[in-house]
Parts: sequence; structure tokens; C-alpha cells
Amino acid sequence: MLSITQTRIPQGFIDLGVGHPGLELLPLEALHQASQALFAQSEPHFLQYGAEGGDPELRRELARFLTHHYGAPVPPERLFISGGISQALDLLCATLTQPGQSVLVEDPTYFLALGIFRERNLQVVGVPRGDFQALEAALHTHRPVLYYTVPTFHNPTGASLSHQQRQKLLHLAEEYGFWVIADEVYHLLSYGPPPPPPLGTMASERMISLGSFSKILAPGLRLGWVQATPGLLERLERAGVVQSGGGLNPFTGRVVAQAMAMGLQESHLQRLRKVYSRRLAALLEALSAVRLPVRFQPPQGGYFVWLELPPEQDAARLLQQAREEGVAFQPGVRFSPSGSFRHALRLCFAYYPEEGLLEGIRRLERVIARG
Amino acid sequence: MLSITQTRIPQGFIDLGVGHPGLELLPLEALHQASQALFAQSEPHFLQYGAEGGDPELRRELARFLTHHYGAPVPPERLFISGGISQALDLLCATLTQPGQSVLVEDPTYFLALGIFRERNLQVVGVPRGDFQALEAALHTHRPVLYYTVPTFHNPTGASLSHQQRQKLLHLAEEYGFWVIADEVYHLLSYGPPPPPPLGTMASERMISLGSFSKILAPGLRLGWVQATPGLLERLERAGVVQSGGGLNPFTGRVVAQAMAMGLQESHLQRLRKVYSRRLAALLEALSAVRLPVRFQPPQGGYFVWLELPPEQDAARLLQQAREEGVAFQPGVRFSPSGSFRHALRLCFAYYPEEGLLEGIRRLERVIARG
Repeated sequence: MLSITQTRIPQGFIDLGVGHPGLELLPLEALHQASQALFAQSEPHFLQYGAEGGDPELRRELARFLTHHYGAPVPPERLFISGGISQALDLLCATLTQPGQSVLVEDPTYFLALGIFRERNLQVVGVPRGDFQALEAALHTHRPVLYYTVPTFHNPTGASLSHQQRQKLLHLAEEYGFWVIADEVYHLLSYGPPPPPPLGTMASERMISLGSFSKILAPGLRLGWVQATPGLLERLERAGVVQSGGGLNPFTGRVVAQAMAMGLQESHLQRLRKVYSRRLAALLEALSAVRLPVRFQPPQGGYFVWLELPPEQDAARLLQQAREEGVAFQPGVRFSPSGSFRHALRLCFAYYPEEGLLEGIRRLERVIARG
Repeated sequence: MLSITQTRIPQGFIDLGVGHPGLELLPLEALHQASQALFAQSEPHFLQYGAEGGDPELRRELARFLTHHYGAPVPPERLFISGGISQALDLLCATLTQPGQSVLVEDPTYFLALGIFRERNLQVVGVPRGDFQALEAALHTHRPVLYYTVPTFHNPTGASLSHQQRQKLLHLAEEYGFWVIADEVYHLLSYGPPPPPPLGTMASERMISLGSFSKILAPGLRLGWVQATPGLLERLERAGVVQSGGGLNPFTGRVVAQAMAMGLQESHLQRLRKVYSRRLAALLEALSAVRLPVRFQPPQGGYFVWLELPPEQDAARLLQQAREEGVAFQPGVRFSPSGSFRHALRLCFAYYPEEGLLEGIRRLERVIARG
């Protein structure tokens, strides 16, 4: 049997490890409306080999949308349309790096980015997240070509770099001459006070911001963007895959441009914020209500809550028992290039409605109680 | 001004160098119908992170379609859905190669593939196309990791490898232990007797066949496939970009699966064959009618006619004069990794209707007559 989706969850099982939007939150109706409106225009250019930088209508709509949400001007000339963040990351490696160079990542970090770096034959070095002394030491030692960070509502910890930390990062990037690739995929999913400005809006040649429609519209679209200086975007446009195939997703890009023009992206984002905000509140309440020997920082956006068990605990071992109880999570070690965070685990509150989250935490309590 | 399409052709200019389908041949109505039928099903899974190998419905429909057209069984388990041939090529390099290894290509070849190889830090070596002695010598010298070929209705020459040559290639691949990556993008665009079987249907671990919807449906979809052994496809599924982002184009893939299920891909292919067949006939007739000192082999499929001028001529120099006359082509040297074929040029008959092709050849005659 071939599956449709990337993750298969057995009936009745609650997998709090899955970092996906809930199926019931996928914008079927919005994309239906956008497609109808698009095809009614009888304009075939979006089916041709597309402009290397991406569909111009999408770039204009996206520029307006980001300018509004970031509270700072984002012109279309600073946007390049990609087939999602993963593809953008790979394309940036093709354009900016040479085999054998070092890449610094946060420890912990989004683990699936590491495979992309390794296939470009880069040396991945983890640096404790938020520790700028350790970062500066690593810059001295490794002279990295780039630093990969998830500055806002971090995966897996849910934390955000402060405004001061962002400025420090900018100064270091200019001083040591490395690229900062900021994966800002969760930035718009804010449920409390607004986070500090995205790195994409900080004026520096060195700052590259990646965004995606995966978390604010739908992952199956495989559509995202790179925000950087026009000079850097020109280099991306000259990449082999882009020169050969044209723009990276013209058909889907135009459907989404239409959805944006109709205000459907904005209303969907507002809906997601409400729903995820309630889910996060329910998860935090459940965590407070049960007797779990865990520590956590309530996040103010994104998808994840990061739990720290007592240091002697092993979350990977716990996961085996949890599976028998019908619940799962991501063990912290999976996010660590140094094999640390064995006592931590990541829970996602985006995929399940409140009752699923509550039941998941109840099961988790039984597992940890048996410990 | 941001452009929608990759190539901008001034009003009245006839660019016979553009290897794109005509705008009036893009299947707007078919994709409209398929989208309507798809959204009417209210089934959201194709908007989620998709299965790594691609949408199962698309793999099943594509398997049926290829089995019919190839006259040999193509099971869905041997198909991996990609974001077009360029992306597939890049992913195969990520999976199968190491920096510094050699890649053999045909001379002449599809020049835009070379950028993809070079960004994976591979050494590109050209071998005269169809010269199997030279190929064997190059295998001895360079021990390549892979050989890239366009076996059928070759870009740029329009020629096809014979059945015997294909078998020879298979034997060499097994003897010397390299991968054959066959770019079979033009295979289904046949306007005469059927070409020899595609390399994808030759039983060997070493044969990897790439296909695409770009030439049989629409380039803007950015949708294609890899046909290979299940073992190799599993390796592609583990690639960094695929693990991180899920299947490569779930949304578009499901739209196209729907179009295939409704028979719209088949009817569109039949239409393209009729239209391109007439365009090719018109171009060949025009070439025979005018007095051009050129030699050419009439192709039996694909997009291109390859003209050879007398050996002392320089097509790149001619192109400058041609532009002043309002016509253009691709100079042969552009396709040659060794800088050969300076006296040759490529004409595309897919983009313009008959009258455009005729007018283009008339302009070309004036340029060559002036010499």
C-alpha cells in the first residue's frame, strides 16, 4: 500500500511528535476558490517555463503581505520563490558553499536540515543555542561559511532570540564574514505579544531569511521564499536547477498568488492563530494539571513545547514505553548534533485538537509515573 | 518590470532557439477540469506533507500511462515523483555521487544539465555522441560515476540511439559499473515510426530513466519522475530535501493524477503529436524550399532540427546578424562541452505555428545569403 502523506499514524494513536498541521486545518476551500478564479482568467503564462525568480504576481502579493506582518518594507525585488524551505536551503548551499566548509547550527536544531548540509559535503558543527560566547569561539575555530538558525519560535524549543541577540548575530556575521540563514517558518504563527523583528528585515547583505507557505497555508504546496539582497537572489537565479527548469513552482505559485489577492491567506493565518493559540493553551493547562516531573518554558508561538525531564531520564527509552501506551513524541537527542538533550522531548500542539492533546498528556503521565 | 515567463521574446521577433511549447498549446482547459474534479472530492491529504515517493494516485496513473506507451510493464513501485527532470538530476547527484568524480555527457548535449553537475562539484567530460569507441576509451580513462544521455529525439540533434546502441550502453554500464541517467523527456513526442524502447524499460539496476510532464503537459507544473529499481528509489526517498519537505510536489501531483484519470493527459499528448508533426513538416518543407547551404537529418520526434552549415561557418557570428533580421536560433557550440559544433545550429519547431516557422526560415535565408 502506497501512502498519500509522509507520516502514517495508526487509528487511536496520539503522535505528539508529528510537526504537521492538522488535516482539518488544510485550506481546501480557499485553494478551491483561488483555482476557480485563476482558471476563469484564461491566461496560460503560469503553465510555461517561469521566470527564474518566481511568479511576479506572487512576489508582489507576498511583498505586501510580509510588509504588513513584519511592520517593515519587504520589496518584491528582495523575494525569490522556492519550492519550500528545504529546497531553498539546498539551493543556497549550491550557490554559497564549497565541499569541506563548515556550517554552524544551533544545538538543538531542526534535525532534518542536517541531511541537506551533509549531502553538500559540508561539516556540521553544533553550538549551544543562545550561547553567544560559545558561538564566537566556534567562529574562531571553524571559520564557517554559514550559520543556520531558527530565530523565532524555534524548532524544537519554541524559544525566540531577543532583539539584542539578533543584533549581536548581525554584528558577528559582518565581523567574521559568514552568511546567516534564518529559517523564519514560524515567525507569523504568533499567539502572544509580537516577536522581535525577523532577521529578514535587518539591513545586511549577510542576512538571508527563509519563509514558507507550509505552516501558514499548506505543506503539500511545496512553496516558499528566500528574502535577501537582489545581488544574492541573482546568484540563486543562475543556479543550475533554476536555469534549466525555470522558476521553481510557477503553477502552484500563481494559485497561491490568487489566494493572497483574494485575502484568503490572511484569513487563513488569522484562523490558524486562533486555533493554535487555543491548542497551546490546552496543552499548557494539561501539563500543569497532571503531575509530571518536567520543566518547560511556555512558548508564545509556533508549533512546539519543549519538556525537560530530570537529567537522569532518557526520553528515547521513555518513548518505547509511551508507544505501548498509544502516545509518542520526539526525543530531544534527535535534534542535537552533539547527541545532547537526552532528557528532553518535543511535543507538537498543531496537529491535534484540544481533546487529543489532553488525552496524549494523560497517557504520557501514566508512562512517566511508571517511569 | 518582473516577467512571468523564463524567456521574453520581443513582438514580431521569431526566436527559433526557444525550446518551449507554444503558449496556445498549454492545457489550461484540461487542468481547469482536473482541478474542479479534484476539489469536488473534498479530500485534503494532498495538501499535507506528502509521501516521499510521491502521490500514490499519480504513481498509479503514470504507471498505467507509461506501460501503455512504452509497450512494457512499468509498475508504480519503480516510479518516484520529482519536481521535473532538473530537480531529479540534482537529487540523483546528491544520492549517487561524491565531489571530484567524473560524469560523462554526450557531445553535443543538453547544455543546462551541466550547471547541475558542476554545482555538485563533478568533473564533466564530453564524448562524441553515438561514438561507442570513444565512449569506451573515456570509460577507461575517467572511470565515471555516471553517464548522462538523451537517447531519443536528442537535444540538440533530434537523433535517436538505435536499439543496438542502447544494448551496448547497457552492457558497458554493467561492465564498468556506472549509472546511466537517460533523460527521456522527448520519448513520447514521436511523429513517425515508434523509437526503440526507452532505457527505462531495459532490465538493469544501472539504468535510470527521467521523464517529465514539461513537454507532454506543461513546464510550469514542475513535475516529473524517476524510473528506476525500488532499491535506488528508496535511496532518493532518504535524500535530505525529501526527508525534510516530504514528497516533491503533492498538490500539483494530485491535480495531474486527476487529469490522467480523466484521460486528459492522453488526449493532450495526441493533440501535441498532431500539431508538432505538422510544424515539423512545415519546417522541413521550408528548409528544402529555400536555398540554404545546410545539411540536416529530419528528426522523427521531439522539438528540434539540427542544421550543419559548411565547416568554415560560425553560427554564433551568424546569430548576431540574424538578430538584426528579427530571427534567432541556438548556436551549436552552446551544446558542446568541448567547444565544438561551431558550424551547427539548433532550430525548435514546437513554439511557433507553421507561418512563424516559414517566416523564420525566410529571414534565416536572407542572413545566410548575405553571409
